[in-house]
Order: sequence, then structure tokens, then C-alpha cells
Amino acid sequence: MERKTAVLVVGGGPAGIISAVTAKKYYPDKDVVVMKDVEHGVIPCGIPYMFESLEDPEENKLGNASLEKNNIDVVIDKAVTLNRQEKSVETLNHNKYFYEKLILAMGSVPAILPIKGIDKKGVYPIKKEMGYLKNMVNQIKRCKNVLVIGGGFIGVEFADELSKIEGMKVTLVEMLPHLLANSFDEDFSIMVEEKLRAKGVDLLTNMRIEEILGKDKVEKVRFSNGAEESVEAIILGTGSHPNVQLAEEAGLEIGHCKGILVDEYTRTTLDKDIFAIGDCCCKRDFYTRKAISVMLASTATAEARVAGANLYQIKVVRENKGTIAIYSTYIDGLVLGSAGLTEKTAREEGFEIVVGSVDVADKHPASLPGASQGRVKLIFSKQSGIILGGQVSCGMSCAQLINVVGIAIQKRMSATELETLQMATHPYLTSAPTMYPVVLAAQDAIS
Amino acid sequence: MERKTAVLVVGGGPAGIISAVTAKKYYPDKDVVVMKDVEHGVIPCGIPYMFESLEDPEENKLGNASLEKNNIDVVIDKAVTLNRQEKSVETLNHNKYFYEKLILAMGSVPAILPIKGIDKKGVYPIKKEMGYLKNMVNQIKRCKNVLVIGGGFIGVEFADELSKIEGMKVTLVEMLPHLLANSFDEDFSIMVEEKLRAKGVDLLTNMRIEEILGKDKVEKVRFSNGAEESVEAIILGTGSHPNVQLAEEAGLEIGHCKGILVDEYTRTTLDKDIFAIGDCCCKRDFYTRKAISVMLASTATAEARVAGANLYQIKVVRENKGTIAIYSTYIDGLVLGSAGLTEKTAREEGFEIVVGSVDVADKHPASLPGASQGRVKLIFSKQSGIILGGQVSCGMSCAQLINVVGIAIQKRMSATELETLQMATHPYLTSAPTMYPVVLAAQDAIS
Repeated sequence: MERKTAVLVVGGGPAGIISAVTAKKYYPDKDVVVMKDVEHGVIPCGIPYMFESLEDPEENKLGNASLEKNNIDVVIDKAVTLNRQEKSVETLNHNKYFYEKLILAMGSVPAILPIKGIDKKGVYPIKKEMGYLKNMVNQIKRCKNVLVIGGGFIGVEFADELSKIEGMKVTLVEMLPHLLANSFDEDFSIMVEEKLRAKGVDLLTNMRIEEILGKDKVEKVRFSNGAEESVEAIILGTGSHPNVQLAEEAGLEIGHCKGILVDEYTRTTLDKDIFAIGDCCCKRDFYTRKAISVMLASTATAEARVAGANLYQIKVVRENKGTIAIYSTYIDGLVLGSAGLTEKTAREEGFEIVVGSVDVADKHPASLPGASQGRVKLIFSKQSGIILGGQVSCGMSCAQLINVVGIAIQKRMSATELETLQMATHPYLTSAPTMYPVVLAAQDAIS
Repeated sequence: MERKTAVLVVGGGPAGIISAVTAKKYYPDKDVVVMKDVEHGVIPCGIPYMFESLEDPEENKLGNASLEKNNIDVVIDKAVTLNRQEKSVETLNHNKYFYEKLILAMGSVPAILPIKGIDKKGVYPIKKEMGYLKNMVNQIKRCKNVLVIGGGFIGVEFADELSKIEGMKVTLVEMLPHLLANSFDEDFSIMVEEKLRAKGVDLLTNMRIEEILGKDKVEKVRFSNGAEESVEAIILGTGSHPNVQLAEEAGLEIGHCKGILVDEYTRTTLDKDIFAIGDCCCKRDFYTRKAISVMLASTATAEARVAGANLYQIKVVRENKGTIAIYSTYIDGLVLGSAGLTEKTAREEGFEIVVGSVDVADKHPASLPGASQGRVKLIFSKQSGIILGGQVSCGMSCAQLINVVGIAIQKRMSATELETLQMATHPYLTSAPTMYPVVLAAQDAIS
């Protein structure tokens, strides 16, 4: 079958969906097709919560409702060849789609560490496909002894969720000295480690897996210290690579970060009719200006909106000013957020910095029901006073606090501006007006 | 007694405390005295929660710890005369304090409506004094039938808190058609009204009190519709006036808003050695540039930091760019926030506007435990695209969301900037990355 469409989006994750919907909003007369290689996708960040928090893993389905509502065609097929001269994409089912504008939103593929035995049954990389994940959840729920490799967000969230299952022993292995070390400084990482240990997770840092043992199926692992442990299943939280095979074979430019290179408007550097967004492309760091790989659905959707709006014309002058890494996570009552550079990264990248931090309760007075203690840490450029990054920890009421910090970073606010920020406070919702943590941390940095 | 001090702060509320501490930080060699007219103050916004939420009203005490820690002297006395020529303040106890720099942080006094019988026993204006409030709490807890006059934040929060007391009938009277009408548009006000009604509060809008009846003590009220009702106590949530008597008698300039007029650095217009901050002074509205009265501890502390830093020199070039009204409140699981202009006010003030709004769940998927439905509404200038105001409603996780909107206002962000905002999202903490409410509301306004 051959088909012509104005806009072809390859990829049905958050970036693909949002770019298609945005395209249709800005260019209502153009027909838009979204090509997905799995029929039933999932909300990526919800994957760890398919074990216990959600009653049914199906609840985490990423549906097509917003696409259908906007008259966008969805086809289930896999793009295998991109022909830039002909402006066409050929598929696994031997169909050919001709496009005027192509958006690559192809996501990422799980990184598989070169560990001996990693291809055994019972070892689960995280694939964003409902059928695969439902089977994984079913299998793992039957186990008594599960190992998670990798102490990044995915690994930490899986360990937290699995520890809610009665009778399950959960081990989390991280090769670095601390968990979440790419996004948080040590003081914040330690909070997570304490929380997980308190929940009974066996936490092994500074540790690698040397070998996965067992006949066909995983039975045991050998650690880098020589110890062995029986395990029934292993979850790989060891990161992902940009999915660039199609783009690379078509001769598009791939960056140092292993993703597709794009300009400020998310157009690929070598072909202005092909856009690339989300996990499959490089981002430019907001402050260091280096090509980095940040794989976040929230970042991806911001890029998707830029792509969708600017497909045929630079409709609105706007640009991707650079990407900040902005994360939040939740572990058993503890909210943690990070935005921009950590103290450690800022120093490594050559910034002269000054750090302000404050510990405060998230309600006032702190004896109100449900109050918990939190910390805010802000990193500023010493000379220019501009905020470079921030980290927060607290209870549920601080779920959006990292986005207050994130917007301050995106507007390049200074410590003195933040010191006189006007903010809403309330006994049940925030620290006291005299103790607003972003203000106090800025003040701490100034003094 | 006569005493000389470099800096004299009159008022021991949040503004007084923060200005004194900031002064000491910026000018460590100057001695600072804080004069308070009540020995035991209270955290103003915590007053409604002294009935039930806090086990002991004493927990809401505003202590002097931060003053003592910073070597700031506290004196309990009342300023009665300000002599600007002599640069002195005389007190009720016949002491005289000479200052180099004076900060007036004298707060506000409750507005007493001219209702017949309002001076009867059992009618409680809200005074910020521990002894008075403890007595009020004790008296009211014995009642079965309490009336709250005024449907602003204080009235709504008192009604919510009192409704937690078993067996108490609570009536809330507001003369306007809706509660919180100065800070929210009707759609948000209605959420509060439904919540309070569901909690059993008898809500009477479009209603006034004609007369308070009883011998010495309140026994009954007569409403504007002629009906009568028995009540044992009445709480006045009918607002406050700036406390300006001292300033006015000393010839300082008082604005249309009834507060002391100050410049961008919080210096009084007629005397550069006298600063005025917080509830007792006028603010200039961020957008309309009119002199307005916004009585919020958070606003007051932002002004206090400006005053403290700039007492002797404009140390750091910074200014009060204008005040935004920024509020949040919490009623039985419902978080409500407002920042900047409402839709209604923006139209009244002559702005040509466009409004974007969105209803979304505060977790994703929405079937996660504890998820609730929320609304975000943003008001933009139609031509310039600049954000003028916003309102949010949601569950506890949105406690800081209004501060995301507030910082966007303070940085005069445009709808297109907000549409591609980078934000942290997480299943347990926020809406989905494809559904971040500030982004969607901005997008709704654009389209």
C-alpha cells in the first residue's frame, strides 16, 4: 500500500502524540498520520506503579483518544527505511508513506549492560509495551526475591514499589557510591537511601553484577565483591539509548550524545523537512550549551509543541532555549525534585558557584497534622548571581515546588530577585511567609 | 527612660521581624530594637487553626527566637508619638527612643462594621494577640451555634475549622453573591461554597446582618431579609484597616488606600529615614499601578527584606516592582490559589484579555490512590500575550502550583513561553507531562 500524508509522525509516545495534536491545531487543513510500532503503549513514567499502586496495569495505558478526537489517523506499523530523496518511509508490513513533513519521535531503547548471562529468562529490560509489561508484572509478582540493577529514577521507583508487595525481598544494586547521583547531590541521595532501607530494601552501592547465573532462567547473581545471592527475577534500570537506527541509516546527523542533532526549532540539522523530538534526539543543555541526552516525557512534550507549531512556518518566534534536566520523584511520602545543574555537576562544568540551602517544615506551625521537614538547596553563579540549579525534598505539598525553581532557572533569575519573590503561603500548604524556602535559600547564598 | 538606637522597628509581626533580621544581616554593626505592643504575638495566618487543627493554641505563637539569635533587642511597649524633627518615638510607658532609621511595621486593625449591637459581648474581631485569642477559642468552643460574618479568606477558613468541632452549627454570612469574590472568579468560588455546604456550614450569600440582639451578650441576629436566628458567638471576618494613626499624626503621607505611601524602596514619601512595610502601607499593583491594600504576611515579608537591605544605602539595586495579590487556602482537602488579576478584575480595570482554562487530574493515571480533579485558569493580555493572573484548584500536591503561576506573573511571561515550559512531572505528584495544567491553560488561551 502507498499513501500520501502531509505530516507523518513516527512514534506514538507522549512526544509523538503531542506533536501530532499541536500540528493539527496550527495547521488544521493538513492531514496527520501517527505511526506506532506497538498497538498498546504505556504512560512511561507510570511503569513502576503497575505492580501495586494501580489496581490493574491496564490503567497505565497510553490511549489514542486525543489523536482520534483531533482527526489524526493512527496506524500500527514499524518504520524500517527512510528515503529522504523521495520523502517516504517504508514499513515492516511493506507499506510506503509519503510525507511533506516528517516528525521522528522514536524514543529510546533499553541499554543492556554487557553482563554475562544477561540474556537469561527472568531478566527484564523496561520496554514501553503493554503486553510485555503485563507479563513482566505477572511473573515478578510470583517471586519472593527480586533484584533491581541501577539506582537511577527507574531503579529507585521500582524498588520502592516492589517493597510494597508483602513478603518480597527487594535488592537494589548501584555501581556508584550513591543513588540518583546524576540528578542529586549526596545530601539528597542519602535521604532516598534512608527511606528505601527503612522500607526493607537491601541497598548495595559501589557494587556491580559480575555474572547472572542459572540454567535458562536466572537463579543467582554474583556481585563484584564475589558474593552470590539467589534471585528469581532481575529488573534492568540501567538507562536507555536514543533510538536512531532509522535516522542514522538515512544519513541524518547523530551527535556525541548518540541522539539525532536538531536546531532550535527541532528541525534535523541536515533536512529541514524532518523534525526530531524527545528521547531520540540530542538536547542542548540550558547552561553548559553541550549536547546532552535527557530522557523525560515532560521535556519531550515541550519539544513536541515547538515542532508541531513550526512544521510549515516559524509561526510564532520561539525556540528551545536549551534543556534543563527537571525531575521529581516520590518515595513513600518523600517528594524529591531536581532542576538544572547539581552542585557537583556545576563544579565539574567549571562554574564558579555559591550554594544556599535551608531546612524548613512544609506547614506552619510545624505541629499541624501531616507536616514534614524539607530541604531546599539552590546553586547560583557567584559573579552573576544567576540561579543554575536547585534541589528540593519534602512532603506531598511540595510536589510543585521544583517547578517554582524550574521556572526561576528558565527565566535566569538572580538570587536578589528570588530573595524578594512574592509567594502564596498558608498554614496547611507551605512554610511560614517568613520561612519560604526558595527565598531563604537565596538569602543564604547571598550572605 | 531615653535610649538611642540605630534602627528602631515598630511592630513585631512577620514584617517587623524580617526587616529587623535583614537589617542586622546587611548592617551588622548597627544596633536594632524591635518594639512590640503585645508580649505574645501569633502567626497571623494560623489563627483560624487554633480551634481544632492545633492541639494547643500556644503552638501558633510568633516567638522572638530569630530576633534573639541575631542580637536584636525586643521591648514590649506601644509607640504613641512620632517626632520626626527630633527623630524620636515616645511610648505608652513614657520612654523615648531616638533612631537613625525607623521602620513602621504596625500592621492593621480589624474593621468593625457599623452594625447595631456589634459591641456586645460574644462578638469577636480578630486581634493578633495570644491572650485575647486563647480566651476567644475557649469561649467559642463552648458554643453550639456560631456565626461568622464575612466570606473572605479569614471567614472561610474559620467556618471550615469550626465545622470540624462536633455538634457545632456554623453559619457564614457574606453580603456579595459569592465567597472569596475579591480573589477568585465565580467558578472557583462555587467550589469553595460546595465544599463548605458539604461540611454542614449554613452559607448565606447576598445577605447582611441588620442587628445583633441580646442583653449584654449576643443572643440573636437579624438578617437583611428580616429573618432572625439564635447565635451564641460571632466572629468578624470583615477585613482590616492599615494601622496609620501614629504615622498620620506625624504628618506622613497617607494614600487613597488608607495606608502609608512609600517609594520603590519602601521609604515613606516624605521622610527618607522612615520606612513603612506590610499591612500599614500602600502597595502599588503590579499591573494596574494603582495604590492598593493587600494584607498578606508573605507580601509584608518581601517588603521587609527590601527595607532591611536598603536602610542606610541602596545596597543592592532592587525594587518592589509592584505587588501581586497572591493567595492560597485549604478547605477540607481542596487547595485553592489565586495570583494577580482575576478575570473579573482584569475586565473592570480595562484590560483586553483572553482566558485559558483546563480541568485535569493531579496524578497520572488518575486512578492512582489519592488523585483528585483540579482546574487551572490563566488570564492573558490579548495583544501582548503577557500573563495577568491565574487561579488554581486541586488536591494537596498543588500547594505550590499557584507559586509557579506567581513567578510567571512576576517575570511577565507570555502564553507562548508558558506553552513550552519545561516542568517536572511524576505519576504520584502531577498531571501527565502531556497534560501539565499551566501549559494546557496557556495553550487554550492561544487557540
